[in-house]
Amino acid sequence: MSLMPIGRPALCAPGLEQVVAAQAALRRRNPLVQCLTNTVSANFVANALLAVGAAPAMVDNTQEAALFAGIADAVLVNLGTPTDAQAASMALAAEAGLAGLGGGARGVDSSTDPADAVPASVDLLEHATAVSASGLVDHAVGRVGEAGRIVLVRIAGGSSLLPRVTATGCALGALVAAYASVAPDPFTGLVAAHVHFSVAAEIAAKAASRPGSFAPAFLDALDAVDEDALRAMARIAAPEAP
Amino acid sequence: MSLMPIGRPALCAPGLEQVVAAQAALRRRNPLVQCLTNTVSANFVANALLAVGAAPAMVDNTQEAALFAGIADAVLVNLGTPTDAQAASMALAAEAGLAGLGGGARGVDSSTDPADAVPASVDLLEHATAVSASGLVDHAVGRVGEAGRIVLVRIAGGSSLLPRVTATGCALGALVAAYASVAPDPFTGLVAAHVHFSVAAEIAAKAASRPGSFAPAFLDALDAVDEDALRAMARIAAPEAP
Amino acid sequence: MSLMPIGRPALCAPGLEQVVAAQAALRRRNPLVQCLTNTVSANFVANALLAVGAAPAMVDNTQEAALFAGIADAVLVNLGTPTDAQAASMALAAEAGLAGLGGGARGVDSSTDPADAVPASVDLLEHATAVSASGLVDHAVGRVGEAGRIVLVRIAGGSSLLPRVTATGCALGALVAAYASVAPDPFTGLVAAHVHFSVAAEIAAKAASRPGSFAPAFLDALDAVDEDALRAMARIAAPEAP
Repeated sequence: MSLMPIGRPALCAPGLEQVVAAQAALRRRNPLVQCLTNTVSANFVANALLAVGAAPAMVDNTQEAALFAGIADAVLVNLGTPTDAQAASMALAAEAGLAGLGGGARGVDSSTDPADAVPASVDLLEHATAVSASGLVDHAVGRVGEAGRIVLVRIAGGSSLLPRVTATGCALGALVAAYASVAPDPFTGLVAAHVHFSVAAEIAAKAASRPGSFAPAFLDALDAVDEDALRAMARIAAPEAP
Repeated sequence: MSLMPIGRPALCAPGLEQVVAAQAALRRRNPLVQCLTNTVSANFVANALLAVGAAPAMVDNTQEAALFAGIADAVLVNLGTPTDAQAASMALAAEAGLAGLGGGARGVDSSTDPADAVPASVDLLEHATAVSASGLVDHAVGRVGEAGRIVLVRIAGGSSLLPRVTATGCALGALVAAYASVAPDPFTGLVAAHVHFSVAAEIAAKAASRPGSFAPAFLDALDAVDEDALRAMARIAAPEAP
Repeated sequence: MSLMPIGRPALCAPGLEQVVAAQAALRRRNPLVQCLTNTVSANFVANALLAVGAAPAMVDNTQEAALFAGIADAVLVNLGTPTDAQAASMALAAEAGLAGLGGGARGVDSSTDPADAVPASVDLLEHATAVSASGLVDHAVGRVGEAGRIVLVRIAGGSSLLPRVTATGCALGALVAAYASVAPDPFTGLVAAHVHFSVAAEIAAKAASRPGSFAPAFLDALDAVDEDALRAMARIAAPEAP
């Protein structure tokens, strides 16, 4: 689950044009993304950020985070620091306590359908401007317009090989951080990251059918995604009430 | 060298049918394997476990191990925590002190022929139900039948590229842990892990001839190994007295 | 920037014949290289060392470094321990304080042209026998002959994909350490490492055009580089005054 910090609401619900504009901004601005992540995912997350055109700065303990505060364009706080075991316990705690979703967690992943997470995501909008849950179909909720109306945007795509490669979830979080730093608002950045990620996974799944070769193919595809690929392959549902 | 904790002896010496049954159980049950390993190998070990159908939970310091004790199906203790340097010194200490094999260690690997490790492996059966040493031909010893007779099972296969890719030895240890949790006894799990690993390496070596491309090809092959592959390619020698 | 510790000057400025001889020595002697590096790069650095024929021993904290002091052929001190954030701050400090080059750093890399680093590299020869800065064209300076005359050797080649894959710079440092342990002098080892690395990158760039597939292709190419490849592809400029 990705939470975007409190920021301005989107002018309108993010759609294809906003995603295309955000991707162009990402490639043009090469944001420096400071990552507080873990030893399992650090290498893959750094390569995912480099592939989309961002500049990663990997930090694996919280004490040194302040060193980069002055120069980073975005900061990713992956709750897996310092260990995935801790991440899992945090996930268990967050799911059972913060959002009331109950069970379904297994190792570092949850087996809950992202659609089931929408009510909890909406509740979390009291603490964040936009929230997403990823899965077969990603679900992102956020505030739109001056009145801060809450809308749900669903993004299809991806690949069943994504959960077969470790750190792909962490890489999605890193893309969210990168996009947040170049998009006009957090909700647009969140949706753009999910779309870029999903389109790349679909491209990679055409080149590789097993997890070992899917990993480098996915990094290639993160690099390959451009305006043409987004226009041809993005599957963003029309915004709706959550 | 892999040591399986004290458990029940195998009903009979593990052979192809027992390996096939264990592999089916692994795919069906997707055991959660908690790994205490090191920063060099964590990512590759996690991907190897995902490839064979297990669910990895990576823990890179011992303090947090207890968090998972209640839910993990298996726990891998890779003596490389927290550093490979320490692993090497432990390996040196274990080889020279526990098992009397003396020299031959170099970095994190040993240059000793696994066949030379059989007497030491048999000695270690006072502290474990099954013990293996890997190399050109893997040698596994364990107890069989009500009388606990000690037998040696040799597994051929593998690839000369395995020691050219870091963390493949750690990945074998993780497979041993995963198989131990689904097999009827530790010795059967140990042999099944070695066979799955060796067959996968042979498949990968057909697809890749250098270490960079061998790594993803090996993960693909770990995923691809199924009953047909095991029946066609497993090379398990008839059990013998050690 | 790679700094080689104080050692004997080269007999002559390193050229193709010296590089070919150093590469043969590396393959023959398989030096054990102790690496103090970081969690992001440890796996890739280990695989790069294995690919060129060295034996890596990864150490990720400085306290245990002494364990290996007696047996390692070379020690790599990557100033990124324990975090890349710290590496970046050290790089900033080193560039601005030690060598007077000022700005241009971004994340863990510097955007300074290596040619601009030559005066600073020459200054650092008061504390080292050879110094290099890598980039589009690598620049290495070192002392030659009994009089310790300072010469500059430029090495072309490489690939624009190198900075798109994390830890490639760390891998170059590891190759420098490996070559230093088998070459007759530090300057020759430094130049040989840069040439091996650059030729491998050119080979890899023929096989892969995007960063995900470039990484394994580059490891394959590090393995593939031999005397023939060096003679056909090395691009070492004639030595000149810096």
